[in-house]
Amino acid sequence: MKFADDIVYGRKPIEELLDSDRTIDKFLVEQKMSGPFEKQLRQYAKTHRIPLSKVPQNKLDRLSHFKNHQGVIAFTTPIQFYELEDILQHTFEQGETPLFLILDNITDIHNIGAIARSAHWFGVHAIIYSLKNAAPLNSTAVKISAGALLEIPVCRVGSIVKALEYLKQSGISIVGTEVDKMEFSKQDVLNAPLAIIMGSEEKGMSREVKAFCDHLMHIPGKGNIDSLNVSVATGVVLYEIFKTRADSKI
Amino acid sequence: MKFADDIVYGRKPIEELLDSDRTIDKFLVEQKMSGPFEKQLRQYAKTHRIPLSKVPQNKLDRLSHFKNHQGVIAFTTPIQFYELEDILQHTFEQGETPLFLILDNITDIHNIGAIARSAHWFGVHAIIYSLKNAAPLNSTAVKISAGALLEIPVCRVGSIVKALEYLKQSGISIVGTEVDKMEFSKQDVLNAPLAIIMGSEEKGMSREVKAFCDHLMHIPGKGNIDSLNVSVATGVVLYEIFKTRADSKI
Repeated sequence: MKFADDIVYGRKPIEELLDSDRTIDKFLVEQKMSGPFEKQLRQYAKTHRIPLSKVPQNKLDRLSHFKNHQGVIAFTTPIQFYELEDILQHTFEQGETPLFLILDNITDIHNIGAIARSAHWFGVHAIIYSLKNAAPLNSTAVKISAGALLEIPVCRVGSIVKALEYLKQSGISIVGTEVDKMEFSKQDVLNAPLAIIMGSEEKGMSREVKAFCDHLMHIPGKGNIDSLNVSVATGVVLYEIFKTRADSKI
Repeated sequence: MKFADDIVYGRKPIEELLDSDRTIDKFLVEQKMSGPFEKQLRQYAKTHRIPLSKVPQNKLDRLSHFKNHQGVIAFTTPIQFYELEDILQHTFEQGETPLFLILDNITDIHNIGAIARSAHWFGVHAIIYSLKNAAPLNSTAVKISAGALLEIPVCRVGSIVKALEYLKQSGISIVGTEVDKMEFSKQDVLNAPLAIIMGSEEKGMSREVKAFCDHLMHIPGKGNIDSLNVSVATGVVLYEIFKTRADSKI
């Protein structure tokens, strides 16, 4: 498998990149840059939901190895991103019970990679991924995922809350997860169309996101310290759903 | 929490270290060293099951920041190690059904840390850990484990095979794990005294170790690529055992 991603810099190469079918992971633009090209880039980034950051010139110098970057750098990625609407429609058309995994501020690339492997293994239909404060979905993430990030559809969304609203309107139950000593959720919940939310390593789910949850899944245990690693917790939750759905088909 | 480990060098300080109650993670000894002190160290390392490696002088120079190491360096660790025999006896005395976790060549410190968190959370009685080709159990591992490696007993063994023989003789069922599309093991197996083996990230269980298994647990799924991250697989297996044992107590 080839996982290469690439750095593209300079106006002309970037214009060519925008016309190509290669996936762009993010843009870095020189702080003081303005004018029609900068505006075009911002518009493109907004339309295609690509992160765009303003950075000092010396950062661009360093990243381009002091080449003539003309104030702009783009990173491409081997991952192809999908629209949530398309994935949802496709899943319903296949006659499958939707299972989505929403990553809310997961920042560690090792966790992203391990989560993507579990998601693929347990048959998740798509990973929904916030653009903000999250680990980059680049070739390193693909490698750590053992290629799973090239197999499972990934949707990038500007706002997790808007994605949750859309999913709810489409008849998907929103399920949050908590690691605590309580019992597990009832099985009938797990057979419904679901979107599972996994919160950040440090803080768990944000309060705003938690408010959207129709149910909470609990991972029981008896330890007295900081609960589970987030990729392990994700694996356990997906395993439970996989097993419950498999059992209820018998 | 203080996780500090330390580097100790020079004959006199090392002699004092051997007389103290601090835990030693490993010894590094200069390649050409011989004589009574070297012999004493080798004997001590063997008795206390501490890894001892012969290394070139320039490695000792670098690690000691060019101090007067006199051909020997020791690394201490905040983790306290236990004897397998003591742990086994203690578990039986407590009236609990033993659950041990054997790590066979897990080399990634992130995986060790995440596995220790899961082991603690799901009530594993001890982690059994091979001295050979494994990630160091130092203060970094403790940090990644969120302190779990200070909570759960860890047994270091020179030979996994000898540990398996001992456990088998003591009435513990040896259970290997495989990630594949088959169904899970029967629940009655999971209620017995168990030692679960998790194999290396790259190769899984070694053939020698697999031959000892009384049972194999399977993690079902439907992906078509490289299965699960080893720390996720461990979490899923421990969760299944925890849940089965909790259910059968009702």
